[in-house]
Amino acid sequence: MSSLVQTRATLVLLWVWPLLHTSSSPGYSCALQYIMLHLLGYKLTMDDLKAFRQVDSRTPGHPEYHHTDGIEVTTGPLGQGFANAVGLAIAQTHMAAVYNKEDISPISNHTYVFLGDGCLMEGVASEAASLAGHLQLGSLIAIYDDNHISIDGDTACAFTENVEQRFLSYGWHVLHVDHGDTDLEAIHNAIEEGQKEKNKPTIIRLRTIIGYGSKQQGTHGVHGSPLKADDIEQLKTRFGFDPKQKYVVPDEVRNAYAAVAQRGAALEQEWEQLLGKYCQKYPNEHAELSRRIKGDLPEGWESKLPVYKPTDAAVASRKLSETVLTALTPVLPDLMGGSADLTGSNLTKVPKSVDFQPESTGLGSYKGIYIRYGVREHGMGAIMNGLAAYGGIIPFGGTFLNFVSYAAGAVRLSALSGHQVIWVATHDSIGLGEDGPTHQPVETAAHFRATPNLHFWRPADGNETSAAYLVALKARTTPSIIALSRQNLPQLENSTIEHAAKGGYVVHEVEGEHLTIVSTGSEVGIAVEAAGILEKEGCKVRVVSLPCWRVFDAQPEEYKLSVLRSGAPILSVEAYATYGWERYSHEQFGLSAWGASGPYQKVYEKFGLTGKNIAVVGKKVVDFYKKKGGEIVSPLIKAL
Amino acid sequence: MSSLVQTRATLVLLWVWPLLHTSSSPGYSCALQYIMLHLLGYKLTMDDLKAFRQVDSRTPGHPEYHHTDGIEVTTGPLGQGFANAVGLAIAQTHMAAVYNKEDISPISNHTYVFLGDGCLMEGVASEAASLAGHLQLGSLIAIYDDNHISIDGDTACAFTENVEQRFLSYGWHVLHVDHGDTDLEAIHNAIEEGQKEKNKPTIIRLRTIIGYGSKQQGTHGVHGSPLKADDIEQLKTRFGFDPKQKYVVPDEVRNAYAAVAQRGAALEQEWEQLLGKYCQKYPNEHAELSRRIKGDLPEGWESKLPVYKPTDAAVASRKLSETVLTALTPVLPDLMGGSADLTGSNLTKVPKSVDFQPESTGLGSYKGIYIRYGVREHGMGAIMNGLAAYGGIIPFGGTFLNFVSYAAGAVRLSALSGHQVIWVATHDSIGLGEDGPTHQPVETAAHFRATPNLHFWRPADGNETSAAYLVALKARTTPSIIALSRQNLPQLENSTIEHAAKGGYVVHEVEGEHLTIVSTGSEVGIAVEAAGILEKEGCKVRVVSLPCWRVFDAQPEEYKLSVLRSGAPILSVEAYATYGWERYSHEQFGLSAWGASGPYQKVYEKFGLTGKNIAVVGKKVVDFYKKKGGEIVSPLIKAL
Repeated sequence: MSSLVQTRATLVLLWVWPLLHTSSSPGYSCALQYIMLHLLGYKLTMDDLKAFRQVDSRTPGHPEYHHTDGIEVTTGPLGQGFANAVGLAIAQTHMAAVYNKEDISPISNHTYVFLGDGCLMEGVASEAASLAGHLQLGSLIAIYDDNHISIDGDTACAFTENVEQRFLSYGWHVLHVDHGDTDLEAIHNAIEEGQKEKNKPTIIRLRTIIGYGSKQQGTHGVHGSPLKADDIEQLKTRFGFDPKQKYVVPDEVRNAYAAVAQRGAALEQEWEQLLGKYCQKYPNEHAELSRRIKGDLPEGWESKLPVYKPTDAAVASRKLSETVLTALTPVLPDLMGGSADLTGSNLTKVPKSVDFQPESTGLGSYKGIYIRYGVREHGMGAIMNGLAAYGGIIPFGGTFLNFVSYAAGAVRLSALSGHQVIWVATHDSIGLGEDGPTHQPVETAAHFRATPNLHFWRPADGNETSAAYLVALKARTTPSIIALSRQNLPQLENSTIEHAAKGGYVVHEVEGEHLTIVSTGSEVGIAVEAAGILEKEGCKVRVVSLPCWRVFDAQPEEYKLSVLRSGAPILSVEAYATYGWERYSHEQFGLSAWGASGPYQKVYEKFGLTGKNIAVVGKKVVDFYKKKGGEIVSPLIKAL
Repeated sequence: MSSLVQTRATLVLLWVWPLLHTSSSPGYSCALQYIMLHLLGYKLTMDDLKAFRQVDSRTPGHPEYHHTDGIEVTTGPLGQGFANAVGLAIAQTHMAAVYNKEDISPISNHTYVFLGDGCLMEGVASEAASLAGHLQLGSLIAIYDDNHISIDGDTACAFTENVEQRFLSYGWHVLHVDHGDTDLEAIHNAIEEGQKEKNKPTIIRLRTIIGYGSKQQGTHGVHGSPLKADDIEQLKTRFGFDPKQKYVVPDEVRNAYAAVAQRGAALEQEWEQLLGKYCQKYPNEHAELSRRIKGDLPEGWESKLPVYKPTDAAVASRKLSETVLTALTPVLPDLMGGSADLTGSNLTKVPKSVDFQPESTGLGSYKGIYIRYGVREHGMGAIMNGLAAYGGIIPFGGTFLNFVSYAAGAVRLSALSGHQVIWVATHDSIGLGEDGPTHQPVETAAHFRATPNLHFWRPADGNETSAAYLVALKARTTPSIIALSRQNLPQLENSTIEHAAKGGYVVHEVEGEHLTIVSTGSEVGIAVEAAGILEKEGCKVRVVSLPCWRVFDAQPEEYKLSVLRSGAPILSVEAYATYGWERYSHEQFGLSAWGASGPYQKVYEKFGLTGKNIAVVGKKVVDFYKKKGGEIVSPLIKAL
């Protein structure tokens, strides 16, 4: 067996352990990943490999979760896969703590991740690495392909830090293999040593030569471009392949991998037997674990969602969110949440819940469901993707809405991969007041509303908050951002969970209206106030709440046209940039630029976001369309 | 003098050195910053201090550049200020290398930055710290307020890494002061030691007690909430103040600070004299340095912008961007750019330009204008803000458009602060082809178009690319993102720099049109193709290019209405989410979800973005509006 094949055979062992999780953080190396999956019997044919980077193939330019069999997380954007692996390892550690018993431990996998220099330069990886060290994730093994080359050339030009020392500072177990291209025994031993370390994550620095065997080995020439024909020829010859043949797996290689796959299958069978025993002895735990891994929600959980009457007190929606989490946590063990160091502001911690912490810290246990992420929003987002990818866990994470943007890279991958991740995004507008424009989102809603397969919720009251969680928890392949207020919000007259779960509904209905005001979150109450003022002046005004555009868009045409109907102008009101509201309204009122620092009522006044001023604006709109004449058609009626 | 005052007096020395730059990365501590500025004679009165966190005050909840005298960078979003300081230090190092002479060195300031645990947890700070170590920025001194407290409580819950060891791994000079609340001599000595170190940035870990002197000292209770009345009383008594008085500066304190300010003024005068000598001896350098610091551009630079004819060859706009940079670099020494490890793809490096590198690396010199940022997009964004804040430098940075999102936190602060930062954002759509959806932006344009004071450009050809740079370079207080194609784009018939510099113009004009197609970037050529097909079928079609919405929005109403005129339906075509296009068009065509991996022509075909299909779509739109009847009014005509 050639040394290339041997190397690969050693590495692929990593893919076959039952319930084992892997992440190849440098997603551009997916050709190798696809080949391994093919050789190990995943649903990836030789034709799939030939269709590499072709439209509609199973082998896109970077590996995509939910798209290709055996791909466990989507990678390519650097640093994400590494942070995903930290999430996978947290999930394993937590699920093991909850479900393993003294005599039977069905959850015992390691998580392996490959990473390169690029991943290590990214801040998201630094954040995740620091947290992984703190959390003492012994089941995590990272293999760092230290080849000294990134796209700009030798890493000497930008990346000269001491990686081993950095990981020691994070509390990792640090190993290295000096001849990573050839010293298979050393690689094997290092992995084994990593497996033995139970209280620290392990990183193995594998000193390698990029494009090993190519004429261009050791240069960035082999990073992004295909090798030249003559180079491929000499490379194949060198490793004992027929240089004339393409897309051929010699029997020798095929058999070597088949043996690996067989060993994996045997181990999987062993594991199934173990699980069978577990099922017999611990039927309740087994049932719950099976339900969670399958992705079902327990019967009747929705009945625990808080319900409000219009006469109930005004409450901040971040507080309403806390009430939802407090109600659901006892019936939904799948919920595992945390905050990026804003627990007391995000109200993400359910009373008496235990921190996910190593026992040795005295601060919690691995059974704990509350994660202290530290001020690491991007890391949190990517770790949540890993938690969701593991299965059995619905992760949520708190920060200010404005700082979800720090995690934009991870949020995008939640949506692309279909990871059910919930952001508890409090302090959702200028309504946060004194912290000022550095903390007040303006453009954020536009960003996330424009992202495919992402639900951006902005509930206006208690029932809408419950609805947001209802839909977010049912949406098993869609991430949600729930934008929540710092300030108190009144309970609305026509708000119910059922109504709000449609993404949009009529809060205040009148017939023969002169105007419809459409709004979200904290501004719906202001719109209702404006409607009241205008009604006293003889101007009939409907009010529509549109807490989630994407969910509303998915409703039947007839329903949507009944909410945003023709016949009168529609005015949108929201304390953000008006960008995008033209889809649902004829006229838009919002912020023309940044917010301001001050008590929130004063800030709202400064920007004209008061019932009184919206009434004036509404009157102007009504007059304009009266003067203009002609039919007023709903903006939803379109050719395309 | 009380010890509190002494401590402060020591620290404020940092603010007064001529041309010295500072950043308080934990912006929530701005109350202290404002008080210091007041005591040192900046334009901040006692009334301003009393108006802390009130609407329209000079003392918002977090410090804002361009808003408050003496605030040099906007901070609050954690980690940014630290990375800004790295930018300030790069700027100083570069300007010193370019302008200092053996006998006269007008540029010799240190950059000081305060940071806390939160800053250190953020990935953006890790990225900047690693690069600062690599670049051996000896003039940078960071003071780490190691108080063991963040908002979630003791840092033991999430942040237990060894910070000193981490910074050693980055190649920093690491010092510590064990009693940071009281040991003024040790602080003084550490700063002095940091100043002596010329080849490494210095970090001083200052072990402190948060809320020192309060009854709640050492707890997170003093982090975000005001102290109670009795606590304030005992605190004032303890440090020798009258506990009954508020907003009072004892003469003793006022005088102590006046002496500091006086020393600063004297040093400033000394520096002015030095600069005078420099002016006499090196008049050319002095003139250029003065121009750069003032923020003027040199005479006639615009004439160097490349100009194209419709008959010129089709070229990728990333290549057109390289041509612009190559033309401008000789006449605009202010340009200092780089890439986040995608130099060969972004085409950001002008031939023969020198890398900004320590001489000892053998890879460049501090005179070099090309920065190898490594795979650190967020760090690059925040460092560019620091470069812009220093003065004299117009920073640009390259990455794929999709990965500008990694830097969202920094981009937002460029716009809020008014830093002229230019993103060379190549591979701007599904047109990047094989890399696939993980790299293909869909939501990105919506995000940045919705951000106030940010110019998102998407030029369609050579003249539009020149126009984008023209406007971006003239916009001294506005950042720009220039989205550029990987694939070749044809030169358009009516495209001129002057036209495109208006943000939008008519590319193809006809009278009595049945349809106007509005588009940007690589899709304008497709729209022109569609117009050609439709014209053969007797359907008259205008084509409008809208490379920068925000710039177009600022044009006179009459001009805008002449471009997007009433009378026929307007259809937008863009290879992004259609979100937001309702502002400029009646109908929208774009991507309904993610892109795909494959050769770019195939990907465009898959999503119907071909001249042929857009002609079909256009016909559908024309028929719909014909059938609908009634007047067709420009979407720009509005009540509000």
